[in-house]
Order: sequence, then C-alpha cells, then structure tokens
Amino acid sequence: MTSSNTDRLLDKILEPIVEKDHLISQARLAFTDYLASYVMALNEPVIREYGQAYHRDQSPVQPIQTDYQLTPEEAALFYGFAAHYLDIDDVHPHVQGHPSAVIFSALLATVESHDRWDDFFESYVIGLEVEGLLGQVMNPHLKTTGWHATSVLGVIAAATAIGCFKQYPRQKLNRLLSIAATESMGMAFQFGSDIKPLHAGLAAKQAVFTHELVSRTQISANTDPFSKEGGWFAALLDKPVELDFNNWLAPGQILEPGLWFKRHPFCSAAMTGHDAAELIVQQGGKMADLEEVIIHFSPNQDRALRYSEIKTPMEGKFSIEYVVWQVLTYGKIQSHLFEGETVPAAYHKDLQRIKRRYDLPAQPPTGRKVTITAQRKNGSQLTATVDIPKGAPQNPLSLQDIIGKINNAHLEVWITNLYSQPLSTNGLVKSAIMR
Amino acid sequence: MTSSNTDRLLDKILEPIVEKDHLISQARLAFTDYLASYVMALNEPVIREYGQAYHRDQSPVQPIQTDYQLTPEEAALFYGFAAHYLDIDDVHPHVQGHPSAVIFSALLATVESHDRWDDFFESYVIGLEVEGLLGQVMNPHLKTTGWHATSVLGVIAAATAIGCFKQYPRQKLNRLLSIAATESMGMAFQFGSDIKPLHAGLAAKQAVFTHELVSRTQISANTDPFSKEGGWFAALLDKPVELDFNNWLAPGQILEPGLWFKRHPFCSAAMTGHDAAELIVQQGGKMADLEEVIIHFSPNQDRALRYSEIKTPMEGKFSIEYVVWQVLTYGKIQSHLFEGETVPAAYHKDLQRIKRRYDLPAQPPTGRKVTITAQRKNGSQLTATVDIPKGAPQNPLSLQDIIGKINNAHLEVWITNLYSQPLSTNGLVKSAIMR
Repeated sequence: MTSSNTDRLLDKILEPIVEKDHLISQARLAFTDYLASYVMALNEPVIREYGQAYHRDQSPVQPIQTDYQLTPEEAALFYGFAAHYLDIDDVHPHVQGHPSAVIFSALLATVESHDRWDDFFESYVIGLEVEGLLGQVMNPHLKTTGWHATSVLGVIAAATAIGCFKQYPRQKLNRLLSIAATESMGMAFQFGSDIKPLHAGLAAKQAVFTHELVSRTQISANTDPFSKEGGWFAALLDKPVELDFNNWLAPGQILEPGLWFKRHPFCSAAMTGHDAAELIVQQGGKMADLEEVIIHFSPNQDRALRYSEIKTPMEGKFSIEYVVWQVLTYGKIQSHLFEGETVPAAYHKDLQRIKRRYDLPAQPPTGRKVTITAQRKNGSQLTATVDIPKGAPQNPLSLQDIIGKINNAHLEVWITNLYSQPLSTNGLVKSAIMR
Repeated sequence: MTSSNTDRLLDKILEPIVEKDHLISQARLAFTDYLASYVMALNEPVIREYGQAYHRDQSPVQPIQTDYQLTPEEAALFYGFAAHYLDIDDVHPHVQGHPSAVIFSALLATVESHDRWDDFFESYVIGLEVEGLLGQVMNPHLKTTGWHATSVLGVIAAATAIGCFKQYPRQKLNRLLSIAATESMGMAFQFGSDIKPLHAGLAAKQAVFTHELVSRTQISANTDPFSKEGGWFAALLDKPVELDFNNWLAPGQILEPGLWFKRHPFCSAAMTGHDAAELIVQQGGKMADLEEVIIHFSPNQDRALRYSEIKTPMEGKFSIEYVVWQVLTYGKIQSHLFEGETVPAAYHKDLQRIKRRYDLPAQPPTGRKVTITAQRKNGSQLTATVDIPKGAPQNPLSLQDIIGKINNAHLEVWITNLYSQPLSTNGLVKSAIMR
C-alpha cells in the first residue's frame, strides 16, 4: 500500500536537506528583498494606523524598525500586511502569488532568543517547497475560481516553516498542518483594496495562531488533511490529487522556477515593457521629443495590464502605458506616482501618443518578450526589445539592486550589515532584527 | 438598474425590525440552549486545557462561569469551541450547521457595560437571518464539496450580528461584511476531531477580529463582496447568485424553518429513533426482555447514521443502534457513554438483536418519521412511531426542558434567573453574564 499524500509530505518535510548552501544563500536574498519591501511600506498611512491602533505597552513582539509592541499574531499580520502592501515583494510562478510576505512574516513573529539564521533560512526553503508543490497542483484552478493563492497556500507554507523552525516532531507537525489547512482563506474579489495585502498578513497570523495552539494544547486534528479525495484538495479543487515528490528540492522551488524580484511597485506583467522603455531612454529617447510610442506584445500577453487609460494612480500599477510614460518622461519610475488621488495632467496629454500593438509571435505561457518602437519628431526611430526582464530568475537582481530599492541610506546600511556573523551562531536572528 | 446583492443585503440589515417580540423570545430560548450547551462542556479536558493555556492575569474578557481571562478574540474562540464541543447545540436546516455556537460566542466576546438584552437578541436574529439566507443559496453545495457550513457561513453571520449590536453605520458595516467574507474557512475533513467544534470558535474569533480591525482602522475593502459573479459566491459556488429577499423576516429564519434543539449529544438524524425507543420503554419494553428490535426507516433516511456497529463511544453519536440500545437498556440516554475509550460489553452482546429495515415509504427531504417494532421474548410485540422528534420546531423543547439538559442545580438556577429585569434595561447583558 502506498502511503498517503500527508504521510509522504511529512516524510519530506522532516528529511534533512543534504546540499543546502545554495538554497540558503538564495533564501537570504529573498529575505533581503522581503525586508526592503517591508520597510518601504512602514510609513504608509494604513500601515502606521494598524501599528498604532494595536500597540500596547507590554506586548512581546516589536516589529523591525518600529516602536509598536504587538502580540505574536498581531505582529505576524503587521509584517505580512506591510511586506505585501506596495506589491513590490517577490512572486513565485508555481504559487502564482507572493510567498515571502507570508512565510518570513510568520517566522519573524515567532523568533526566540536562541534562533539561528541557518535554521531560519532552511525553514523558509521548506515552507516555499511545500507552497510551490501545492501551487503546481492547485493553479490555475485557484485563480479561476476566485481564491487568492498568496493566502490560501500561504497559511500552509508558513505553518510548515514554523514547524521546521521550531523543530516539531512528526505528530505535532501533522496536527499543525491539518489545522492550518482547514484555515485556508482569502478571495480575489479583494484585489484593488487594502485587503489584498491584508491577506498576506492574515495567512501569517493564522500560521502563528495555529503554532501557538498546537504548542499550548493537545488538541486533536484529522491526520490526513491532504487525502487524495475528501480533504483539503476536495474543498478547493475539482479532482483527486496524488502528490508527486519527484522534484522535491531537486533543485528546489526557490531555484526552479525560482523567485521573481520586483524593482518597482507595479504588476509584474509590466516588467519587460518597463525595461524596454529604459533602453529607449538610454538611446536618448524622451517623451517630449517623440511623435509616437508603440508597445508590441504577443496576442493576449498583456491581459493583466487591464488599464490602457487610468483614472487613479493605483490603476497605474496595471497600465503599461503609465509605466512606459513615467520612464520616458522622468528617465525612471517615480514610485510616488502610484499613490495618492491624482495623476499628472501631462500624462493625459501624452497618452494619445502611446499605443499597444499585438504583432509579436505567440510565446509560451512563461514568455515575456516585448518590443518598443519610438518614432521621434525629427523622423528617426528608436527600437528596444527585452526578452527577460530584470528581476526574473534568469536575469536576477543583485543584492545591491535589492537593497537599493529602499532608497534610504540608514536602512540600506542596516540591511547590508544584517548577517555580519557566521550563519550558525546561536541567537543571531533575534539580536540582528532587534538592533 | 437593480442594486447589487450587497447593497440590498445592507439595506435589509439596517432596516428596523417592526414586529420583534416573538423573534426575541425565540432568540432568548436559543441563548438559553446555547448557554446550556456551553456550560455542559466546561469541564471537558480539552476545553479546560485551552482556557488554562491562554489565561493571562489581565485580559479583558472572562468567559461565563470560568476564571480564565482572555482577549476578546481568544474568548470568542473559547465560547464557540465549548458551545459546539459536545455537539448538543442547536442546528438550523438552511444553514445545515450550528448557528448559535458562532453568533452568540462572537456577541458575548464583545459585550460592553452599556449593552442591553433586546439589542443583543435582535442582533442575533439578524445574524441568523443572513446566515439562513446564504445557507439556502449555498447548500447542499457547501457540504458536497467538503466545507463546514457552521464556520464558512458563521463568520459572516457573527460579523453581521456584531455590526448590528454595535450599531455600525452603513459604510462601516459594508467593510465589516466584506472582510468577514474573505475569511470564510473550515473544512469537513475535520469532522470527528476536536477541530470540528474549533471551527465554531474560529468563526467567532474571526468575526471579533474583523470587528476590532474595522473599528480601530480605516482599512478599505471591496464594497461588493456578494456580487452576482466574481466575489464570495464565485469562490465557493459554481453558479451566479441573485439574492432573494422576499422572505426576509417573514416570519424569520429563527421561526421558519426554525431552530432544532437537541436533548442529547448525538447526531440529529437519530432524534426520531431515540424518541420512538422512549415510547417503547413507556410501554414497558426493556432490552433484557426483547427477542428482536427493528428500526424502520425510509430508504436512505439513515445515511448520517453511518455506524451500525461502533468501535468507540464517539462513533456512537452516529449509530442509531447505540442510541436505541442505551434507551432500551437504561431507560434513557447516558451521556457519558458517548465519551472515553470503551463501550459496555453488554452492547456488543445485545447488538445482534437490533436491526435496521428500510420498509417505510419514501419521505420528503425534511421527513424524519421512524417506527420501532420490538418483539418480546414472551411473544408479544411493542410498536412505536414518531413523525417529528422532540426538539424540532414543530415539537419544541420548553425552556425547562432546555435548562434541564445541564443537570446541575446551581447552573440551572443561574440560567433561570438570567433575564430577571426588563429586557430594555441598559447594561443588563454584562451585569447578568458577569454574575
């Protein structure tokens, strides 16, 4: 008799990782990007409001770079909410969502004084491994039925990571995952409101709640949440599932397909067009001198970029015209133009000169190639083609690129110095993040 | 243009109730049954363990009849977990689950010193009205796909009730319901473990969390969570929904189809057979004198009673043979025989004389008629037929029947005296429950 999905999943989670250096160094990059995304959002009004509203004088967790004192559950929510708030945090193709905003938030809310960096990162790698594995099975069904993968999968991924971090024995890990699975929630109708980033926080909060519940009580739970039929899969998917562990850590979801890191707070579908616009600028192109700008896509490639003319800066996150216009006008993205109530008057005037065309050949689902052609008023033409945008695993951001997103010298130094001692030193996580 | 599902739902929730006396008196009966179910579970080991594990010296909510001091979220979970723990709390046919365990738990966790009983009960009536309305649309789909209606619908019902209780204005109520909807969770694979009753607590906890979040912050949320297509319905159901408010409070979900109150902690599908066995006892039948006992069902009527021979007392909650055997052996149900590790040896010996037969005519889905025929060793035969069991809305339990479930004189007096002043007196809820 083959063992159940759940049994095999537990086997894998509990198996020691043999070759882990490359995985951990990638997790460290992901954590740096997570921290950058998080600290960039700390002064957003709704994030500050949450921290102030929940602050108590004597709560055990003080989130990084804040004065707020929160309970572990509240801190997990704060971390996840902030890390995903600007939508500049990492994305994973199998998850079809944002893994780090949930997993690292749950881990940070549970850090204790003896915790070590290498356990912290190894736990993240395993959490992401489970999330990517489940994502491959659940997508695109989750998306098409209206769930938000970031939180639905995230609560299980984050619980897995905590279970590894706290070295749960098998039976306790089983209870943890079973309770986390039944708490799957978060729906796509919230996209475009504050609740989309809140979902990342909610998933981290649920994982921390479940960890505390399982640690404090002997509460029983069904032992086969991922049964082929009838369990978690049946509630969220329309077919039975036999999990396939052949690609487990070979080489690892964090490397293949790998994480996408964003440079700017707009939809990842606009990354290639943005990079092409940068090449046009490097060739001397600027909006004022251009007669016409054409953004060439393959058919249907731009579906996520749903606004060709925007009414609010927030809609601009999903408009290739607005992204390209910013680069051609200012030389680079102006993050503040995705916030507030109004878009610059010049945008509306220039917009008639920016067009989309669907004349590139069809690409595989993962293809992102975009061409921009810009006709100058003086008659000459500029052209730029980008196949793989900066930030994709095949064209990665460097550590310095990631830290540079923050645009705050004090915080850049703090993050740069974060891992200043050997990873295996006891107590390093707490001492580093409390600095 | 017709207004959206969400708009019409908000209209209805905010409409004053015209004729409310009968609704409120039924809500009071439901609350009494809720309290009975709750206090009966207070000494269960896992319930005590939760209270002790989460107790702090200075938390704002002290659940009724306990010394535990908990946060409002933790108290909501404690109340819901305990109230549903023995599965003796009320059931609603449209919900296909347990409404009071969630709604009253959320309300109790948010009681303030000025709150009045009539607002408390009116809020419950509206919460249940929303839950029944959504249940009619979502069932049986929720059940067949593996969700637990008690929590999936319960979080929205409980949030609605809190919003009414705290007199939310429209826009704030809209945010509350939108955030509650995206937190829908709880899966049927947990049936048979402690997590089934925990689901009731989790839903109450989420409602209290959402109430606090919406009250403390201006966080934005999608304004049409119940859109015909694309929102909450799309994620959980496979077809678009146009909500029908024609039966809103006419006469009210609490009256029609009404709440079922249980006398004993076993599956409600066994209620009619239990009552027929009581009639056999009243005619002088007892197990020792009987040659054969036949329980007559309509075809498929006994599907929920899945164990014809049980291995554990817990399985006995879903065995008509075990229920009938207890009544015929002891004269009435022995609640402790549904707990612990072993079933009496005599049960196994007597079981061969108890049989099911499917020879009653087909009944409508709500039909519950059962006949028992008992062949005495002396040759004579006893017969009993019950159409509607005690506890159904058409054959209701009295207030005294409900209070009598507790079987603890001190608590019976406490509940009997609970509403000793006029319902409209300010501050009555808090002073009554803190006594």
